[in-house]
Amino acid sequence: MQRYFINQNADENQRFFITDKEDIHHISNVMRNQPDDLIVITFNHSVVFKCRIISIENHEIEVELVEQQNSDTELPVEVTICSGLLKSDKYEWLLQKCTELGAAHFIPVQMQRSVAKLNQSKVDKKLVRWNKIVKEAAEQSYRLVIPTIEFVSNLQQVYVNIDRYDYVLIAYEDAAKGGEASQFKKALQNFKNGDRILIIFGPEGGLSEEEVDLFRDKSFIVGLGKRILRAETAPLYALSAISYEKELMG
Amino acid sequence: MQRYFINQNADENQRFFITDKEDIHHISNVMRNQPDDLIVITFNHSVVFKCRIISIENHEIEVELVEQQNSDTELPVEVTICSGLLKSDKYEWLLQKCTELGAAHFIPVQMQRSVAKLNQSKVDKKLVRWNKIVKEAAEQSYRLVIPTIEFVSNLQQVYVNIDRYDYVLIAYEDAAKGGEASQFKKALQNFKNGDRILIIFGPEGGLSEEEVDLFRDKSFIVGLGKRILRAETAPLYALSAISYEKELMG
Repeated sequence: MQRYFINQNADENQRFFITDKEDIHHISNVMRNQPDDLIVITFNHSVVFKCRIISIENHEIEVELVEQQNSDTELPVEVTICSGLLKSDKYEWLLQKCTELGAAHFIPVQMQRSVAKLNQSKVDKKLVRWNKIVKEAAEQSYRLVIPTIEFVSNLQQVYVNIDRYDYVLIAYEDAAKGGEASQFKKALQNFKNGDRILIIFGPEGGLSEEEVDLFRDKSFIVGLGKRILRAETAPLYALSAISYEKELMG
Repeated sequence: MQRYFINQNADENQRFFITDKEDIHHISNVMRNQPDDLIVITFNHSVVFKCRIISIENHEIEVELVEQQNSDTELPVEVTICSGLLKSDKYEWLLQKCTELGAAHFIPVQMQRSVAKLNQSKVDKKLVRWNKIVKEAAEQSYRLVIPTIEFVSNLQQVYVNIDRYDYVLIAYEDAAKGGEASQFKKALQNFKNGDRILIIFGPEGGLSEEEVDLFRDKSFIVGLGKRILRAETAPLYALSAISYEKELMG
């Protein structure tokens, strides 16, 4: 069952309105819902309710709450994927897949070796598109939160906020080439529920030594297995591994 | 350093010729190599050599072997990704990413709920394209083998060969919805080096109950974490988890 988000606090005594154009389109034209149909809505604080549609108009859909749903589709750690700007469709795929896989935040960065460049003037337009992709992917994957996206023009701006995080990992190709095969697992095994994790990935050209040195003293430099992974694949490996380590029981 | 494959046995006393058109193009026009440049070539039996270019012609590039490379970029288990046919670009993306992540074999299957359909007459053309994608991805990821691709028109054809495998896993969405969160990890922790693993994934519409029942007695039915993963994402989760479990040390 498709899910939708409403940025308000759930209240069984109120009726609510879906006003997002794309959600209205999806409900009316794609799913062809009618009054009395049930849909699932995620409210603030990850509260999820089965809701009944009261009426469908072009500009709003009125719903009432029926029954709260137990639902826990979030990773137990809060992961920020900080990655070098990639060529357009690759980054959009990364956003979609990483949202499916549980990322909480995205920080695209104009890194030294990024082939793709983004002028400040075009950032806002890109952010609208990226946020739309992430919202759709969050709805399809039954996420309880919609991941945030924050564009910065260099890694220094990420570094100044480094104390936000409990762990910082850098996926550095050269480490893997040198045979590094334990830092990532050791780090993951130490994560506690609720920890805030920053993982830094380079662009197609890789991280520069200068960028790695910036974070070296405050981070784990990790290899992600024995194969060279493309810039858009490495974050998927990392998120899958975190889910496997923390959510599956052996 | 880009890698290339030559389907012959390495022999330091011989010279060899690269004759694959795409490799010749890549060496001549993309990398703009010259005689005396070094490139890395993978021969039969996963033997890898640094080689020197002797001469570059339109139809062949002559090389001599310089030094064997130690290289172990293969997963310790042999994984077959058996997945329902997906819409065109999604399946090509799956092939590329799964090759990066270490898959050994692909079996695309016309499953009951596949939206995409493939006539036998178009299969050969598709296979040419798919094999090209997989070869390129294998070269970029420094794989020692090029994964194979075998198209079958229904799951029964996979079932008759089930004794090829040491383990069969079915990624079944309904299992995850029911809270199943341990079969996958338990299976992976039991894998021994060299085991042959078949993992079955549904198409966009999911596996039918009939298809799951076919394999039920001979397989593990597994959930892959708490979120709904798209058909093309689930195999990436599985391969990443296998690498994480078997290749990284905690």
